[in-house]
Amino acid sequence: MNLVTILDYSGVAVFAATGALSASRKQMDIISFMFLAGVTGVGGGTFRDLVLDVPVFWIANHDYILVCAAVAVLVFFTAHRVESRYKLLLWLDAIGLAAFAVMGAAKGLAVTGSPVVAIIMGMLTATFGGILRDVLAGEQSVLLRPEVYVSAALMGAGVYTLGDLAGFAPLICQLGGFIAAFAVRGGAIRFG
Amino acid sequence: MNLVTILDYSGVAVFAATGALSASRKQMDIISFMFLAGVTGVGGGTFRDLVLDVPVFWIANHDYILVCAAVAVLVFFTAHRVESRYKLLLWLDAIGLAAFAVMGAAKGLAVTGSPVVAIIMGMLTATFGGILRDVLAGEQSVLLRPEVYVSAALMGAGVYTLGDLAGFAPLICQLGGFIAAFAVRGGAIRFG
Amino acid sequence: MNLVTILDYSGVAVFAATGALSASRKQMDIISFMFLAGVTGVGGGTFRDLVLDVPVFWIANHDYILVCAAVAVLVFFTAHRVESRYKLLLWLDAIGLAAFAVMGAAKGLAVTGSPVVAIIMGMLTATFGGILRDVLAGEQSVLLRPEVYVSAALMGAGVYTLGDLAGFAPLICQLGGFIAAFAVRGGAIRFG
Repeated sequence: MNLVTILDYSGVAVFAATGALSASRKQMDIISFMFLAGVTGVGGGTFRDLVLDVPVFWIANHDYILVCAAVAVLVFFTAHRVESRYKLLLWLDAIGLAAFAVMGAAKGLAVTGSPVVAIIMGMLTATFGGILRDVLAGEQSVLLRPEVYVSAALMGAGVYTLGDLAGFAPLICQLGGFIAAFAVRGGAIRFG
Repeated sequence: MNLVTILDYSGVAVFAATGALSASRKQMDIISFMFLAGVTGVGGGTFRDLVLDVPVFWIANHDYILVCAAVAVLVFFTAHRVESRYKLLLWLDAIGLAAFAVMGAAKGLAVTGSPVVAIIMGMLTATFGGILRDVLAGEQSVLLRPEVYVSAALMGAGVYTLGDLAGFAPLICQLGGFIAAFAVRGGAIRFG
Repeated sequence: MNLVTILDYSGVAVFAATGALSASRKQMDIISFMFLAGVTGVGGGTFRDLVLDVPVFWIANHDYILVCAAVAVLVFFTAHRVESRYKLLLWLDAIGLAAFAVMGAAKGLAVTGSPVVAIIMGMLTATFGGILRDVLAGEQSVLLRPEVYVSAALMGAGVYTLGDLAGFAPLICQLGGFIAAFAVRGGAIRFG
């Protein structure tokens, strides 16, 4: 299991958790927890794959769906114990954002070979799930909060893509992209 | 004309009617009635087909579009006579939900052979049109109402898929799925 | 460079400008300007291409993305000087609507040969970007304003498609469709 696989499942799991936390804030039932967890967890990647015209990743591999469902059940039974569900949601969202910025850029680069498309795909993959979650849960869109949401995604996708172009090893590019995105977004949450 | 075809057109027609009723509640013009009817009527199936990577169903067969347009015109000239447009919208939505949960699961199973994908596709097809309608018409999302919306879709898709796996005749699976979804959702509207 | 190419880039650029103006109204940062400009500029065409099952237009040609980014930067540094950003947004949106109604119908007709699909595609391409913008920026949906938004798109797509069926030269159909859509929408903004 390499870093890309870990980033991939981690991103899906933490975004699923943010979807479930949103469901929890709105006091939905457990099936709606799963639904919102699933949409948030795989939404960004689904859109990425449709635009790149490659098979949607969770059709061939159901593990992603099962991860979302398991995370939703876990959050359903534990979320009321968390002191600030919103704060937890923001931090998990930051991890997912960083993981998906790298994953999206990597897939965009692999499929098209174009750095511009790679960076756009990183941004879209990283932001789309959270946008869908906020629209569906009737929350104020994450785009409207005074935090550098899209900038963090751009930073992660950009560092990954430029690192790859510069010939760095994949692991370095992935780690660099993840850390860059998380640092920008985390800094904004902590100090913004 | 078999049950699947009937479910299919019925689902499109009743969802189109809910879109037109939403347009009526917002006092839109007749073209916007058609637009909202069309988006709601074929939105779920469009998303299903994109994700399954099969041709979008209404591109090859325009009858679906014409059904939506006809329903929109009908609703435009009659909706003001209905005592409670919102109640009617909810019940039509329940019929569409049940029909599309079965249709989505059937197509998902036919294309991929995977029960997990079939159930997800049933849920997505059944819920996506209503979600789009509510977002576009600026209504509170149907997901946020205290009713078992997604659960009903899951029930319909699940009964169909499990029935098929258990070797029941298609007609039984379709009827069973439709009745299961409608019973859950209708019960919630009536007693919830 | 023929009229279709001009309409195409103009439509992307003016829709991108409306996205950036929305970002300006919400006081977003420059990267969010670019994001909203990009989503609004290429959103309608992306959806059109997905439904038509043809390669997404900006994947093969990045110029569209760069146009959106350049427009976003321009708006970022000038929008505060405009007296009424909202009025400017409405008029630019009308130009984009007219350009995309024609472009969408032309592509729909070229790919499927069906006038019904062509008209639907013109409507979808013309309206989808603005809808996405409003949802993402948390503005009231353009569909809900008392203006003939969808009707104008239908008019443009219809004039283009019927003109083509009647055997008129492409340039005539394109100009006719553009003028028809812009006249309907502009009239509604001016006198509505």
